[in-house]
Amino acid sequence: MKAKPMSLKPSPMAMVPFISVDNMMKLVNRVGVADMIAGIAAEIEADFKRWPEFDKTPRVPAHSDEGVIELMPTSDGVTYGFKYVNGHPANMARGYQTVTAFGLLARVDTGYPIMLSEMTVLTALRTAATSVVAAKYLAPQGAKTMALIGNGAQCEFQSLAFHKVLGIDTVQLYDIDPAATAKAAKNLADTGLTVVPCTSAQAAVTGADIITTCTADKQYATILTDNMVGAGQHINAIGGDCPGKTELHRDILLRSDIFVEYPPQTRIEGEIQQLDPDHPVTELWTVITGQNQGRRDSRQITLFDSVGFATEDFSALRYVHGLLQDHGTFEDLDMIADPDDPRDLFGMVQRAKGA
Amino acid sequence: MKAKPMSLKPSPMAMVPFISVDNMMKLVNRVGVADMIAGIAAEIEADFKRWPEFDKTPRVPAHSDEGVIELMPTSDGVTYGFKYVNGHPANMARGYQTVTAFGLLARVDTGYPIMLSEMTVLTALRTAATSVVAAKYLAPQGAKTMALIGNGAQCEFQSLAFHKVLGIDTVQLYDIDPAATAKAAKNLADTGLTVVPCTSAQAAVTGADIITTCTADKQYATILTDNMVGAGQHINAIGGDCPGKTELHRDILLRSDIFVEYPPQTRIEGEIQQLDPDHPVTELWTVITGQNQGRRDSRQITLFDSVGFATEDFSALRYVHGLLQDHGTFEDLDMIADPDDPRDLFGMVQRAKGA
Repeated sequence: MKAKPMSLKPSPMAMVPFISVDNMMKLVNRVGVADMIAGIAAEIEADFKRWPEFDKTPRVPAHSDEGVIELMPTSDGVTYGFKYVNGHPANMARGYQTVTAFGLLARVDTGYPIMLSEMTVLTALRTAATSVVAAKYLAPQGAKTMALIGNGAQCEFQSLAFHKVLGIDTVQLYDIDPAATAKAAKNLADTGLTVVPCTSAQAAVTGADIITTCTADKQYATILTDNMVGAGQHINAIGGDCPGKTELHRDILLRSDIFVEYPPQTRIEGEIQQLDPDHPVTELWTVITGQNQGRRDSRQITLFDSVGFATEDFSALRYVHGLLQDHGTFEDLDMIADPDDPRDLFGMVQRAKGA
Repeated sequence: MKAKPMSLKPSPMAMVPFISVDNMMKLVNRVGVADMIAGIAAEIEADFKRWPEFDKTPRVPAHSDEGVIELMPTSDGVTYGFKYVNGHPANMARGYQTVTAFGLLARVDTGYPIMLSEMTVLTALRTAATSVVAAKYLAPQGAKTMALIGNGAQCEFQSLAFHKVLGIDTVQLYDIDPAATAKAAKNLADTGLTVVPCTSAQAAVTGADIITTCTADKQYATILTDNMVGAGQHINAIGGDCPGKTELHRDILLRSDIFVEYPPQTRIEGEIQQLDPDHPVTELWTVITGQNQGRRDSRQITLFDSVGFATEDFSALRYVHGLLQDHGTFEDLDMIADPDDPRDLFGMVQRAKGA
């Protein structure tokens, strides 16, 4: 037994910094949306470079008729992270977010959490950041125009990310709901981007160097048909991200060189679930490390079949963790029981009675 | 777009009730430790009865030299739950808890979290609750005396649980560290139990109807040797709960009828990792539903090879959730982004700038 007096207050060891939605928005606005995406992109790229160091596993899903709840864990041997994320396409009509998320970092050596964070906002940033990391290696040289099919929650983040990191100056927007396009156009005013609202997907993709698809239907859909994609374009496919949910016609896939995050997960969730299980794909990290080639010529159609992977969330959480002390955008949560004597959990509960 | 004015405050939809360690201790003390364990035991037993309704998966571990971090998800189709839990045997010497945990419940239909809770304290209660549920079906009739080998954080909760639910009146305590035994004996004074500190494991098990082993070493250990276990005893083995960690000599297993929670997990983590992968075991839930027999005679050695399963955490979290409104022992966390227009996450972030 330790001789020191028993304290009734939680020790600093018991406290976990928590970033609420409010504090995350404060942080994003202090850093700036585009700068924060660029910072996260740098972290994601650095972590892709050390890909073999990570424990990787396909996410752990709980599917239901209405949607999916997933846990996405990973670890680099020093820090452990996981994200909780849901995807419920019917939520929007009910006034809920389609995707909400939170995440956690912990120390591998003690197992103690070191940060809990909202990740609905942060996931939007990391998804855009991942897209630009891939596009850096896959998009045509000097790309200036991007089509965005699906103008929901991800649209503006993608637009700003490609503007900031890749120098895209024009976005051509299309959504089956014109109100979504109007919302995105309004939000993107005064960002330096030329915003072109379009009345068809065909109009949006015409003349685009990059096509980003980010729709939310949970079903096999054909957002892009084969005739809409031309030589040299880069397709950044975000929305096909769970079993039974795809956005591209199969023929497009057969004409494209396909790049993925983590094949065991993408085969189940990505556009390539439409293809044979041994259809050749290239892992993005091997392009970043130079082991494989990204874009090799100006006629090639490249496809980043993005489903979102745990390491990207890990990178984003670590980026946020690195800013916490400077910005103070957190509160302490009394989440971990920390008795003076670790074996005396019962005594701690008993002593709390008198408090 | 909705016409209603954009609010800058998080909506009630964005708020997740959070039970801090402090609030959990308040709740435990209001309900009473023993009564709360009994309440959780009833919930666990009810959920074992509807076992086929649950999505079940072995927990998702991240192993390191120092310990393990695990995610334990499950769902009954209406409610989803998961627990984060670590196990780091070296933590105690560093002044950290060996096991810390937190958990979450969410709605399956929307994917929205409905409760975040500390689970270091709650796991201690649910582990004791699970033990008594099993013992109700497996322990000898009229059991009055229990040996407890390992007098760490779990010891007092086990003692009170067996006293309250099974009518155990005497506990015989042994730990390799006499200070741990002294701590437990002190905590158990005035609980109605006769507490007998012992100086050897052999002394502790002598005359015991039930033997509970709850030690924390992360290694193959032999807390009980074959000669220490006699006809008719029930063994409640708690501490063998990860690969490479066991407490019982293999010969004891070969003389026992073995009952487990979820075989795919117990084969990896439990005492039975010492046996052939097809060694017969009985699933506890089938005993509770009457499909299989529990204890069948007074000479039989029964062994509950407990490793802890996700449904037990789910049951405990649901029990706590049911008490929240009455007791008010929670605070609201701004954890889920909830823009007025779900597609306008970007706009929500922008508007926060002015706030």
